[in-house]
Amino acid sequence: MNSAMIRFILGRVLRIEALLLALPCVVALIYREDQGIYYMGVLTVCFCLGCLLSLRKPKTNVFYLKEGCVVTALSWILMSVFGCLPFYLSGEIPGFADALFETISGFTTTGASILGNVEALSHCALFWRSFTHWIGGMGVLVFLLAVVPLNGGSPINLMRAESPGPSVGKLVPKVHQTARILYVIYVALTVLELVLLLAGRMPVFDAICSSFGTAGTGGFGILNDSFASYNSYLQWVVTIFMILFGVNFNAFYFLLFAEFKKAVSMEEVRYYFLTILVGVAIILPDTRAIYHSLPEGLKHAAFQVASIITTTGFSTADFDQWSMTSKTVIVLLMFIGACAGSTGGGIKVSRFIMLIKSVKRELMSYIHPKSIMKIKMDGKPVEHGVARSVNVYFITFVLVFVASVFLLSLEGRDMTTSFTAVAATINNIGPGLELVGPARNFGFFSTPSKYVLMFDMLAGRLELFPLLILFYPTMWKEMFERRMHIHREPKPKEKNGARAK
Amino acid sequence: MNSAMIRFILGRVLRIEALLLALPCVVALIYREDQGIYYMGVLTVCFCLGCLLSLRKPKTNVFYLKEGCVVTALSWILMSVFGCLPFYLSGEIPGFADALFETISGFTTTGASILGNVEALSHCALFWRSFTHWIGGMGVLVFLLAVVPLNGGSPINLMRAESPGPSVGKLVPKVHQTARILYVIYVALTVLELVLLLAGRMPVFDAICSSFGTAGTGGFGILNDSFASYNSYLQWVVTIFMILFGVNFNAFYFLLFAEFKKAVSMEEVRYYFLTILVGVAIILPDTRAIYHSLPEGLKHAAFQVASIITTTGFSTADFDQWSMTSKTVIVLLMFIGACAGSTGGGIKVSRFIMLIKSVKRELMSYIHPKSIMKIKMDGKPVEHGVARSVNVYFITFVLVFVASVFLLSLEGRDMTTSFTAVAATINNIGPGLELVGPARNFGFFSTPSKYVLMFDMLAGRLELFPLLILFYPTMWKEMFERRMHIHREPKPKEKNGARAK
Repeated sequence: MNSAMIRFILGRVLRIEALLLALPCVVALIYREDQGIYYMGVLTVCFCLGCLLSLRKPKTNVFYLKEGCVVTALSWILMSVFGCLPFYLSGEIPGFADALFETISGFTTTGASILGNVEALSHCALFWRSFTHWIGGMGVLVFLLAVVPLNGGSPINLMRAESPGPSVGKLVPKVHQTARILYVIYVALTVLELVLLLAGRMPVFDAICSSFGTAGTGGFGILNDSFASYNSYLQWVVTIFMILFGVNFNAFYFLLFAEFKKAVSMEEVRYYFLTILVGVAIILPDTRAIYHSLPEGLKHAAFQVASIITTTGFSTADFDQWSMTSKTVIVLLMFIGACAGSTGGGIKVSRFIMLIKSVKRELMSYIHPKSIMKIKMDGKPVEHGVARSVNVYFITFVLVFVASVFLLSLEGRDMTTSFTAVAATINNIGPGLELVGPARNFGFFSTPSKYVLMFDMLAGRLELFPLLILFYPTMWKEMFERRMHIHREPKPKEKNGARAK
Repeated sequence: MNSAMIRFILGRVLRIEALLLALPCVVALIYREDQGIYYMGVLTVCFCLGCLLSLRKPKTNVFYLKEGCVVTALSWILMSVFGCLPFYLSGEIPGFADALFETISGFTTTGASILGNVEALSHCALFWRSFTHWIGGMGVLVFLLAVVPLNGGSPINLMRAESPGPSVGKLVPKVHQTARILYVIYVALTVLELVLLLAGRMPVFDAICSSFGTAGTGGFGILNDSFASYNSYLQWVVTIFMILFGVNFNAFYFLLFAEFKKAVSMEEVRYYFLTILVGVAIILPDTRAIYHSLPEGLKHAAFQVASIITTTGFSTADFDQWSMTSKTVIVLLMFIGACAGSTGGGIKVSRFIMLIKSVKRELMSYIHPKSIMKIKMDGKPVEHGVARSVNVYFITFVLVFVASVFLLSLEGRDMTTSFTAVAATINNIGPGLELVGPARNFGFFSTPSKYVLMFDMLAGRLELFPLLILFYPTMWKEMFERRMHIHREPKPKEKNGARAK
């Protein structure tokens, strides 16, 4: 384990967080809010600590997937801990667990809040909350790669650990260029949404925060009723941009270079739009009856479906009051999630396509036991390892899900609350049903339950394994043993045959 | 597709069903019940139709896994349709869908009932209900193999399709001998339970029906309160036998030949007992508080845990009234299920062991990307195909589960009812929570929902693929095309490369 490299990257991450914390300070200055001082203080500490950690360059740049995972998981935890300090120190969110919950919910683009009255927050707090979504959406390590190219090493392992989806496609051969292109698309789309919202006469502050929330598919609102009180134009703009930010960014890259055919032929993107259409079609009769008009019904159905499938979590209606069928569709969409390579969460459309293809292949193997079939995506055969990983990902997801629901059940809430609270956090959505419905919040949970949900948010955003690996004793045992070996004998012997160095 | 062979086996199955229907006729004679005439009538029709179908021997005995699956699925459907006729014709269960539900619930050893008052049924109906559990527990095709050895062909494909578990182990080289040994163990254990129940002064009729229900891990009771009104001795006997019938029968085979070491070293069996212990330990504080005594609390906790993990479904207490934690444990046990190669349902302990090992292997692949690790069970490496099948089984299970919950949601019941109704049927248990709790029944569902649940019961018992294959268009298309080819050209060309003949 290249721990010097891990320390170095963590230092860099803290310095970036210091940089990002400057923005809420500016907001505090504009609105003349006293709370700004806390952001300034945390900024200073982050910067100093960051410099200290990244002072000494590591001797070797080499690092593997293992290090990529560890550094990613630790970065996210570290960023959340420092990110929550301004909320906690300023007293705007009194409990530390609550402040941490809110910040993890922000960075992981979940948008689940413990606050009953968000309108009471200062502007700088509201801004920081929404800004964490924007940072977390594309990922801070991807940002790091885009800004400071790491020479040597295998930076793809960083990206692999942080980017969502079953396989990371490099758009261009160089990783840091890929990261840059992703951020350029990200910024451009965010700015476009901002302009369109301003054109609809949304106040500037609201428009900025809403754009951040949409871009990161986060979901923190700045009003207590989320998006219900904005006009139809603004609601439709947000609906469309939520859907856009749930698209695989590779599609935008293809469009940028006028490769329309490639963009259109992406299986995942086509099924993503199909799922949205089917979802709206099933819910429409319900919302049409509730709002007594087709355009109103369509608007609310489209907004909620877009918000849930992209795992954003904004709302214009309390879907907990809808029919059982609509609620079931909403819960199913929670799990499907957005496309891989987007800022959205959930299990991802491409994984579901592959899972269904695996099932089909299994059925075929009953019909033709001797034939060997490969799963294909976009016409190309999927590597055996990737198909297996997708299967195991799904299994791990279900196991973590079930364990979390069990832990939450110790609190004795009803089953729908526990079930959808976990679904809403592990899929990085925000609102669930019953006690955690869109009109309510997560504040009532006990502190241990909140930590379970925080774990789920991080596990969901980092796609399980990078976080789980931290809790896998074998890794630490091996690291410890190796270190002992290095101190004792210069050439440690490999123990169990084939092993990565 | 060797359809002549399928027809032949279906004929044999109907003749066996005719034979089995003779028993309720005897019961009707003993209790002088008029309903016996309907059992006699259906018996006659079954026998004649069975003889007609198996009159002409097929030219070739060869048949593959595909045929094994198709014949298994069709056998179970056919048996259920004929098996429900006496209930329907005698008017004891007026609706056809209800009668079919009750019979499928019987054969699949689910034990979910649509009847509010079972005590109103005639003795022959009660007997037939419980007897279907016993037949379905070990499987009618396994019975067929034990009684009439099929010469040539690959009878292992029949057993593979009908027997639960990720891989079918032949105890002895010959399949029909394996089937015979299984049935001998099955009969011996059933008789032992019967004797012990009679020793506890249970009425003969009750003892016979209860033994059938326990042996098949079915769950139909003959009293409205299931097992609540029997004495503690009888409840403990049933608890122990439920647990025994959930053990992999291979373990009994090893014990029979004094291979204690082999029996004890079976990983699945050890984890099965461990799960039961953990389940009881978690629930015990709850039941102890409810019944104000440790022995009473232990008895009820053990009975319910044994009943649910083995997917029997008897009850001595209404666990729907227990704490949220206990209810969550019960729901988890529903999915874990019994051992492979037992008469119990659920996903099976061995599958869960393999799933968890798959997750571990995936984590290890992050730590040592280049090493190749094999999953081991009982110290032996698991074949790659089996590990993959287990993963895909779990995925298919979840997908079928979710689709069923969605279809049930169209009825608008609460989520816990829909969720646990599907869990209780697809895992072949019987009672769920809320509206389908132990103290209630499935009668209130609409007819379409009942058919969804019937599908789930069959899918659960036949372990998904043998049933799903019937709905897979490719198979029928190929069969149709092949037939057309054969008629047109004597030597059909293979189309897509490697294909099983």
